[in-house]
Amino acid sequence: MQFDSLDDIRSFCRDLPDGDAHAADAAGKRQQVLTKPPGSLGRLEELAIWLAHWQRREIPRLDRVTISVFAGNHGVAARGVSAYPQAVTGQMVANFAGGGAAINQIARLASADLRVVPIELDRPTRDFTVAPAMDTDEFLSAVDIGYRAVPEECDLLVVGEMGIANTTTAAMLCTALLDGGAGRWAGRGTGVDDAGLARKRAAIEAALDFHRGLSGDPLGVAAALGGRELAAIAGAILAARRHQIPVLLDGFVATAAVVPLARLNSGILDHCRAGHVSAESGHRALLDELGLDPLLDLNMRLGEASGAGVAVLLLRAALACHAGMATFAEAGVSGADK
Amino acid sequence: MQFDSLDDIRSFCRDLPDGDAHAADAAGKRQQVLTKPPGSLGRLEELAIWLAHWQRREIPRLDRVTISVFAGNHGVAARGVSAYPQAVTGQMVANFAGGGAAINQIARLASADLRVVPIELDRPTRDFTVAPAMDTDEFLSAVDIGYRAVPEECDLLVVGEMGIANTTTAAMLCTALLDGGAGRWAGRGTGVDDAGLARKRAAIEAALDFHRGLSGDPLGVAAALGGRELAAIAGAILAARRHQIPVLLDGFVATAAVVPLARLNSGILDHCRAGHVSAESGHRALLDELGLDPLLDLNMRLGEASGAGVAVLLLRAALACHAGMATFAEAGVSGADK
Repeated sequence: MQFDSLDDIRSFCRDLPDGDAHAADAAGKRQQVLTKPPGSLGRLEELAIWLAHWQRREIPRLDRVTISVFAGNHGVAARGVSAYPQAVTGQMVANFAGGGAAINQIARLASADLRVVPIELDRPTRDFTVAPAMDTDEFLSAVDIGYRAVPEECDLLVVGEMGIANTTTAAMLCTALLDGGAGRWAGRGTGVDDAGLARKRAAIEAALDFHRGLSGDPLGVAAALGGRELAAIAGAILAARRHQIPVLLDGFVATAAVVPLARLNSGILDHCRAGHVSAESGHRALLDELGLDPLLDLNMRLGEASGAGVAVLLLRAALACHAGMATFAEAGVSGADK
Repeated sequence: MQFDSLDDIRSFCRDLPDGDAHAADAAGKRQQVLTKPPGSLGRLEELAIWLAHWQRREIPRLDRVTISVFAGNHGVAARGVSAYPQAVTGQMVANFAGGGAAINQIARLASADLRVVPIELDRPTRDFTVAPAMDTDEFLSAVDIGYRAVPEECDLLVVGEMGIANTTTAAMLCTALLDGGAGRWAGRGTGVDDAGLARKRAAIEAALDFHRGLSGDPLGVAAALGGRELAAIAGAILAARRHQIPVLLDGFVATAAVVPLARLNSGILDHCRAGHVSAESGHRALLDELGLDPLLDLNMRLGEASGAGVAVLLLRAALACHAGMATFAEAGVSGADK
């Protein structure tokens, strides 16, 4: 395993590898001489420079884009927190395999390699209102699955998830590690009614009470109150950082999965961008807490990397302009009046 | 000519053709049975239904996407309202022909056919601070160029522009036809300094004074205070409406070009969506005035259809999901608990 103990993860997070500031500088200088007013491509310029920084080259590439969708099941589903039965997690994994889900269409459009990683779907985490969801070994195993799912040779990683009840788990992590209480973080997920939302908040509050004292230990929280697919996302983000691969985060659940790492070192998000802000009520607040400015705001709330998958298209636009545009000198276009 | 007089345009706008509500209904019903919680694709669902409405088919197509960039020169440039010399309009048209501009890269990525239509670049409109920019015949001729530039067989039209000083012209139209004065509508365009911005506002105010009494006549304003590429955009939007082609508007200038038509009949925007909101200061307010909710907010301010060109990618994502996803029945996925 890449990380044999929680301390191994803590140690990695204390001294995170950085990208290449020289490559980013060179990319920024290139943007200044392309045939457009400086800065006029807005975030497309910033994204090209960010890719250059993490890929360590002035003109980055997006030849090998991987979309990783991690799936898991959750004991807390027994508390009636989702509009869908738990069997849907496995059914949707089959739908991914059959090419019928939204992310299949989006991945094809984005020329991305879709990898679906179901994690012990027949062994849901324990119901965290009455037990630790995972013990340390189970948590490290899920982190390792995520870590190993990332190909070393990859230009961009997109992380997403599938797991009935996992917006409850995501809200649980936020409530345990950030301010605001369950009311701030629990939302309607796939579409629960008022009674379902009340059950969701009650489950989170019951778990907080049961696990009093854990909140000072982000990785302890991630194990006892998290989920396997969320742990795998954290592992994938650590692997991407090790290999200098830029990352697009999907929605509320994928973003919540990073919170334990961000509590160890907020710099863990430097190689990550938020692909979108979802309609799930806590996502905007969570992005604000983490200092992430989402690329898209399309009122999506599907998960399965769908929002970030669409955002890959924006990175392709950023790169197409960065790599393909003529300079003022090449095109014989006059610069600004002095 | 399609429109021989301003009255011909007024007459068309009184009785605008509509799309097909049945096709939109069918598309909406299809969205309800695809393998996702209903509504969870957010605006991607709305966009698929909107395309279905205007293309008159349950499953729309994006096989033939046309990006039309109209270019014109402006007499008001002599007032020192731009950071760039007027020669840049023609130089950028040459850059479009050579494939070196941002929109060339974006059009290729979006599999769109880029058509650049320079309109009498060697004959700028007259300086509207001291004369009518165009007489009625000149205006109708530019409208006609735009109208005829739209292929009848087209699945989506994207309209953009290039023209040194044309954010001044766009702000002029907004100031003449909407509330708020020059201060609300004049922005920094390609990047003028404070003195340039002051000159811009002064030019607009001088023109308002010179053309007192025009404001009750939107098409009279569009001629006397507008520009050729803006008139052509209006013509293209009329052609698209005639042929039931959905339209993506680009930034502040392209949106301002619609204002005269919208003052005749706000329904003219039903077949249009705003591709993005630009960094130009008046654009957000203009979209609000017109009831348009932009698809992207990337701090872009380049024009040349670049923002709307990127938004084509979102329409492709919407269509890919709408056309390609499995239904719950096809995939054997359970629906929501009742």
